[in-house]
Amino acid sequence: MKNRLNGDIAEINAALEKYMGVPNEPQKTIYEAMRYSLFAGGKRLRPVLMLETAKMLGGDADVVMPFACAMEMIHTYSLIHDDLPAMDNDDYRRGRLTCHKKYGEAIAILAGDALLNRAFEITSSAGAGDPALLLRAVSMLAQSSGARGMIGGQVIDIESEMRPITLQELEYLQLLKTGAIIRSSCTVGALLSGGSEEDVAAVDEFAKNLGRAFQIRDDILDRIGSDEELGKPTGSDEAEGKTTFVSMLGIEKSEELVAEYSKKAAEALSRFGERADFLKWLADYLVSRRS
Amino acid sequence: MKNRLNGDIAEINAALEKYMGVPNEPQKTIYEAMRYSLFAGGKRLRPVLMLETAKMLGGDADVVMPFACAMEMIHTYSLIHDDLPAMDNDDYRRGRLTCHKKYGEAIAILAGDALLNRAFEITSSAGAGDPALLLRAVSMLAQSSGARGMIGGQVIDIESEMRPITLQELEYLQLLKTGAIIRSSCTVGALLSGGSEEDVAAVDEFAKNLGRAFQIRDDILDRIGSDEELGKPTGSDEAEGKTTFVSMLGIEKSEELVAEYSKKAAEALSRFGERADFLKWLADYLVSRRS
Repeated sequence: MKNRLNGDIAEINAALEKYMGVPNEPQKTIYEAMRYSLFAGGKRLRPVLMLETAKMLGGDADVVMPFACAMEMIHTYSLIHDDLPAMDNDDYRRGRLTCHKKYGEAIAILAGDALLNRAFEITSSAGAGDPALLLRAVSMLAQSSGARGMIGGQVIDIESEMRPITLQELEYLQLLKTGAIIRSSCTVGALLSGGSEEDVAAVDEFAKNLGRAFQIRDDILDRIGSDEELGKPTGSDEAEGKTTFVSMLGIEKSEELVAEYSKKAAEALSRFGERADFLKWLADYLVSRRS
Repeated sequence: MKNRLNGDIAEINAALEKYMGVPNEPQKTIYEAMRYSLFAGGKRLRPVLMLETAKMLGGDADVVMPFACAMEMIHTYSLIHDDLPAMDNDDYRRGRLTCHKKYGEAIAILAGDALLNRAFEITSSAGAGDPALLLRAVSMLAQSSGARGMIGGQVIDIESEMRPITLQELEYLQLLKTGAIIRSSCTVGALLSGGSEEDVAAVDEFAKNLGRAFQIRDDILDRIGSDEELGKPTGSDEAEGKTTFVSMLGIEKSEELVAEYSKKAAEALSRFGERADFLKWLADYLVSRRS
């Protein structure tokens, strides 16, 4: 299973490489800044989820790959903008200088913009696949990353730093901020692979619960992990006064929730039988990670 | 002609209004910030160009309108990000506080992101039109606003503040920064209206030259205009040490260039005969404006 995961990641990195050349143009700094953050050692969780959802449904990798890469670009742009001084003001991510510390704020803002833009460029120019389905997939992707999806979550996150929030608000925030594009990674993969409405709904339920478990695990790691393992100072969320699942519920209850959501995620895939084995393993692997 | 222009603008504003509701959601600040900048009194130049190019070619307004609105959203997002402290650091635009002065930097960054995202959301979800053609139009739009288009121009603009640039470099910079989406406004309009390759090439030539004339006129107005007319302090480009066509060539030579590019723009439309009358008038109107 681990080999298969590494194989997926290698395929994704090769495809990203193909989409992210550095043409010898006067504006080449922007390509370098985009690459700097895109190839900073990310886990490629979202594109792996999309590829594997597609494999489970017998989809065509050529059709799905541009969308898988787009998802990673969108995730990366959101990290670049989140790290900016006006947002989280982080100097390091994954043990390396953040984009704005390396290239300056102006270029970092534009590198984020350009990655978001590039995501839509490659998905609309892909060529392989039925145009009507591709267009629907672009729409799904855009909805999940916009004001009613990821960006909406970021906004609530910023505003929640100024006042205490409830558990319900925290859940809604994370459902959008981290959940929305994890969900669309799976639903776009299913849609592009000819999945039925029921298939799409099932992988959405899987992804929703996986996203929840994944985020709570992140909060737990932020509290207990070591600096080296995460590549950023731990306890940083709480030091910044952020409400997390751990600060609200404690470690023990948070661990229980991780287990509960993981179980629900696996159950959502029951209709796919053995074909879902890898996704189930992956979900387990992700929520039991130590870094 | 002026009435027709105002009619177009009213239609565009109504369509933008439709796409930019403020749902009663916890993240509603983002919708407000997006609207604040989108309805700040822009000239709607790009969507008007798209609508009128489509009309010239007998296109369907329902198909084109989402793209016209998307173009205005992309233009607006670029202004929001350009105004940020890390970029041009402008407190006012069109006589009103800039987005970050009104909502704070974090929300302004996200409002820009969300407008770019929304542009792709509405163009991929529009419904009306042939999916293959719509997908190509999304791709054209994305290419023009990305690293090889508008964003590329912004990057060169930033880097050019640190060293003197040549006339040739300035032309390339503006061809991307302001030219790219003016061109795609026209080419997308032509493509979606069933224009032939030759039609698309002709409106591209028109838009390229119009964009040049428009930008040089902007530089001239920055030098000679009054504060009130432009809604921002004039001479600000030069005060910031920016190289402009005027700082490089002087007013007289710049005026000559405006006339030359305007002529080329009009000539490019000759194949369309009388159907091009409005676009020709519009080009004239834009490049002879006093504010």
